[in-house]
Amino acid sequence: MEKQDLLYEGKAKRLYETDTPGLLWVEYKDEATAFNGEKKDVLKGKGELNNVISSLLFEKLTSLGIRNHFEKKISETEQLVHKTTIIPLEVVVRNVVAGSLKKRTGIPEGTEVDVPVVEFYYKDDELGDPLINDDHIRLLHAAEPAQTIEMRKLALEVNDALQRHFDECELILVDFKLEFGTTEDGTILLSDEISPDTCRLWDKTTREKFDKDLFRYGLGSLQDGYTEILKRLGGTIHG
Amino acid sequence: MEKQDLLYEGKAKRLYETDTPGLLWVEYKDEATAFNGEKKDVLKGKGELNNVISSLLFEKLTSLGIRNHFEKKISETEQLVHKTTIIPLEVVVRNVVAGSLKKRTGIPEGTEVDVPVVEFYYKDDELGDPLINDDHIRLLHAAEPAQTIEMRKLALEVNDALQRHFDECELILVDFKLEFGTTEDGTILLSDEISPDTCRLWDKTTREKFDKDLFRYGLGSLQDGYTEILKRLGGTIHG
Repeated sequence: MEKQDLLYEGKAKRLYETDTPGLLWVEYKDEATAFNGEKKDVLKGKGELNNVISSLLFEKLTSLGIRNHFEKKISETEQLVHKTTIIPLEVVVRNVVAGSLKKRTGIPEGTEVDVPVVEFYYKDDELGDPLINDDHIRLLHAAEPAQTIEMRKLALEVNDALQRHFDECELILVDFKLEFGTTEDGTILLSDEISPDTCRLWDKTTREKFDKDLFRYGLGSLQDGYTEILKRLGGTIHG
Repeated sequence: MEKQDLLYEGKAKRLYETDTPGLLWVEYKDEATAFNGEKKDVLKGKGELNNVISSLLFEKLTSLGIRNHFEKKISETEQLVHKTTIIPLEVVVRNVVAGSLKKRTGIPEGTEVDVPVVEFYYKDDELGDPLINDDHIRLLHAAEPAQTIEMRKLALEVNDALQRHFDECELILVDFKLEFGTTEDGTILLSDEISPDTCRLWDKTTREKFDKDLFRYGLGSLQDGYTEILKRLGGTIHG
């Protein structure tokens, strides 16, 4: 397998073509950003932690029959994934009130949500990734109505699987963001990453935060938090 | 009929009890507010214009079989309505892109919307009346899921009726906001007002604005715009 042209560089990852059509080479970066890029820093080791955690979680989902773009981890900071055309929506699932859900609804942080809340955000940096509803998705041609229904269903399946998995690791899956893509035959495939950059994860007993909120709100060492998550997931890193 | 205790004072109206249970006395005020109360002014004659226009529009809807809370106009600035318990949601229907839909989606103002867009906003001044989705409505207990479905259906029926009516008056119904309430037996009833305060209305040919955007963006005389709408609806005012 050979790394070829840079296809795309995002805030946290670089995507390269490979010599195998349909397979992409992903490099996780150490850059951390928050608040739509307003806050940023380089946090040594973050890329490795996210790569290892994301690989473990995608493998877990695969073992549970939840199809996703992940092929395999190829180094501490790199993985191979199947190429998809990303649907320009962030799909957020929430089990406990935090972040923008607290701000939007006035419900205190930490309040359990009876039935998981699903939200769609339009991936557009200039617009600030706004919350949108199903009618906006249709208006923007961001996804077909049937795709929106399927993404919601898949997101809730991922939530069931991850919530159970994290619970066994003494972690609360507060909320998380997913991205989906379509393959050449039109199948919707879970893509992007699943990591403490994209999930809020709290200690089950103390409710200590181990996720990107450590960086967002300057609450402590991001690397310490991510390392704790990795440890609880049974994973290890080099160095 | 006798006006009794003040029940509620909002930005544009006062509601009083009457000596007939289940009937409320509404006074339309001359106050204009915009941007969640940040901009405000007193515009003489606005209350009368909104009262007369809203009365005409409710009568039109009634004649088309769309039930609503309106009983009758009792003076230039007053009307009688049936008491409902207001559901804390603003239901917005959009036929043409303007205002916050432009801001949210980046689609230029004036773009026609193929299928009307329906939005729900949570009525909460402190939170700034945020856009919410069906899951948030359930989380907030703002309405039952069946009520949400019914409000969407009713709002689209109102849109069909009003769009046709305004079109005959050479006006484009760009978008509008509705509020619904429940009666004692749980029936959902269209409530609040339908006026140039709550509808965007443009000239069909020139696309000149005749609605509250005149005040919001300082584009011209609000009273002149509202008077033009009233004239096209075939109504008159005193004075």
